[in-house]
Amino acid sequence: MSASQPRAHDLAAGDSLVPAWLKELGRALLGPIVRLALRLHVSPNVITVLGFLIVLAGAAVIGLGYLLVGAAILVGGSALDAVDGALARARGGGTAFGSFLDSTLDRAGEAVVYGGVAAYFLATSPNPTWPVLAVILALAGSFMVSYSRARAEGIGLSASIGLAPRTERVILIVAGLALAGIGFAPALSGALWVIAGLTVATTAQRIWHVWRLTEATSTSEHP
Amino acid sequence: MSASQPRAHDLAAGDSLVPAWLKELGRALLGPIVRLALRLHVSPNVITVLGFLIVLAGAAVIGLGYLLVGAAILVGGSALDAVDGALARARGGGTAFGSFLDSTLDRAGEAVVYGGVAAYFLATSPNPTWPVLAVILALAGSFMVSYSRARAEGIGLSASIGLAPRTERVILIVAGLALAGIGFAPALSGALWVIAGLTVATTAQRIWHVWRLTEATSTSEHP
Repeated sequence: MSASQPRAHDLAAGDSLVPAWLKELGRALLGPIVRLALRLHVSPNVITVLGFLIVLAGAAVIGLGYLLVGAAILVGGSALDAVDGALARARGGGTAFGSFLDSTLDRAGEAVVYGGVAAYFLATSPNPTWPVLAVILALAGSFMVSYSRARAEGIGLSASIGLAPRTERVILIVAGLALAGIGFAPALSGALWVIAGLTVATTAQRIWHVWRLTEATSTSEHP
Repeated sequence: MSASQPRAHDLAAGDSLVPAWLKELGRALLGPIVRLALRLHVSPNVITVLGFLIVLAGAAVIGLGYLLVGAAILVGGSALDAVDGALARARGGGTAFGSFLDSTLDRAGEAVVYGGVAAYFLATSPNPTWPVLAVILALAGSFMVSYSRARAEGIGLSASIGLAPRTERVILIVAGLALAGIGFAPALSGALWVIAGLTVATTAQRIWHVWRLTEATSTSEHP
């Protein structure tokens, strides 16, 4: 908990499953790519689209059954996704369209990855019902987490709380794919059920927090 | 096309697949329910949650294979979804939380309906791969349409354009379920592929429009 006075329209960032030092390490490793893109005058939006195309390729590879290769491609595509933001900041700030494109293609990227995982289960599993329903619940839950935040921002509130923001979801699915790729098959559906549970819980948390914030506002307006 | 001067941050509402008279008829039929809810002092948020629970029940019924009954329940749940907005207006305007809850539970409702349809295909289809991938694409596309609009609103733009807003999606899936329920099985996967195609196209349209709007703004700011 922060000791500073909370603002009515703001919330603490919430506990993240990824330690701060790991995020710092990731940023340090991406520095050379950001500097190269800066020197070549590549626009952050080009990086965003490139990252999405790499994730699309990774999803296709996963759908064809090459889970470990697919996981590696996803790591590359997701890393580019951190580059676009850093590049935009290095160029003196991002544009409104850049932020819109980045988050819209993030969602599309998540969707195609889950589509690839579903295609893998449908092609290889003798009884794909439960794994595929886990995929659909994880996909829907991930979208709900992002959508509830975007809608909260649309009414001027911040709702970036909860245990399942995108970085955590990417790490879980990549870990599940990699473990299943080296032979530990239950890891993938396990990761999906964990993502499904965390995202549904996070969505409920966000609805609850927006309710509390709007109640606080209406009470302070009409005491 | 409107003859009036377009505003930079606004767009024409776009062509709807549902004729205006049909929407008017729907509103007229829901009038008595709105008046009853007003007299009983039921909050619009209670109607929103009730509508979601009915849709949840419809999705479960669909998953169990009763498509025609499920379609009828969905019609009821979706009708309640029009009641909450009308009720909020009749009570002198909705709250920010009401609008947030309404659209968040709309998305959750769409997700559970697609989950029910996927469960139906997985339980009954000899080869569920393509129908289930159509479900996932329709689910992801529907979310992308809503998410791109919410994100555009988050940066102060309107993007309520395109051929596949929620009413049209509900009508397509209900028609597909009802036709499949009376024996014309291809109608359901056909409806899903149509929804998938329309929603992906609408998302692309919205990204393109937000790009044009932000370009127009930055040009007028730095001529």
